Amino acid sequence: MRVIGIDPGLRNMGWGIIDVAGSRLSHVANGVCHGVGDTLSDRLLALHIALSEVFSLHRPETAAVEQTFVNRDGAGTLKLGQARGIAMLVPAQAGLSVGEYAPNSVKKAVVGVGHADKKQIDHMVRLQLPGVDIAGPDAADALAIAICHAHHAQSADQLAAALARAGA
Amino acid sequence: MRVIGIDPGLRNMGWGIIDVAGSRLSHVANGVCHGVGDTLSDRLLALHIALSEVFSLHRPETAAVEQTFVNRDGAGTLKLGQARGIAMLVPAQAGLSVGEYAPNSVKKAVVGVGHADKKQIDHMVRLQLPGVDIAGPDAADALAIAICHAHHAQSADQLAAALARAGA
Repeated sequence: MRVIGIDPGLRNMGWGIIDVAGSRLSHVANGVCHGVGDTLSDRLLALHIALSEVFSLHRPETAAVEQTFVNRDGAGTLKLGQARGIAMLVPAQAGLSVGEYAPNSVKKAVVGVGHADKKQIDHMVRLQLPGVDIAGPDAADALAIAICHAHHAQSADQLAAALARAGA
Repeated sequence: MRVIGIDPGLRNMGWGIIDVAGSRLSHVANGVCHGVGDTLSDRLLALHIALSEVFSLHRPETAAVEQTFVNRDGAGTLKLGQARGIAMLVPAQAGLSVGEYAPNSVKKAVVGVGHADKKQIDHMVRLQLPGVDIAGPDAADALAIAICHAHHAQSADQLAAALARAGA
């Protein structure tokens, strides 16, 4: 299963793609889409084009997007919301379901605790995807989101298998 | 010039299209796109498809989107931001510039004062577009945004003409 994680942002939208085979994870690609342009609509268009290209090129089969903090200033939340709209739209346009995970769930899945800092996340992502070349902190976050989604999918599979065994 | 106004919302996204010839406004169409679906990404996709169809059908030449209040709760701002991302993306995908107007500017352009209620806006939109059949309050707001954009475009044209005369 090929998983894309997306860390939404208007200026920098991180993305990270991994392949999942049982409990084995392998890195596919990661990067950052830049919301460049003079106007907000141009910036959203640039993000949409760049992220759509990532989907065309790497053809992920499932997607996960980080849930956004809403306890910052309203203007910041609105900006991030607009970028997040694009991050949620592109997978839907590709026919994919989109998992949403709170930042603490992502940290817990990757580092083991919910209050890890960026450095710890980067470290654990590198440990779980040996040899990975990470495009920056937004891309590291996106890979962490993909890893979190893979763990949740595995748990769901194991539960389904256990239920099937119990029923057999 | 054909103007589309968009009132962004995740559940109901109002749109209204008018033709502007000098100071004469005429109604083209109005309606509401519904963000239907079980998940957020499905709802954003439904909005994107419906709004893109409006653009294909009516081919507006310029667009305006209402600026969003950010002084409500963070979760509400985030939801609206995500819908607003779609409202800003679709015109950009059609190659249009997008004007943004604060709710008070829209009210002032349409009603003459910045603190008008929904009923007054509906009344003044009907007065300026005689015989118009309005799909609901979100569509009325969208037509008001289009009228506001037309007024601003006229002022800009008049200024440009005055400057050209002064330079001649």
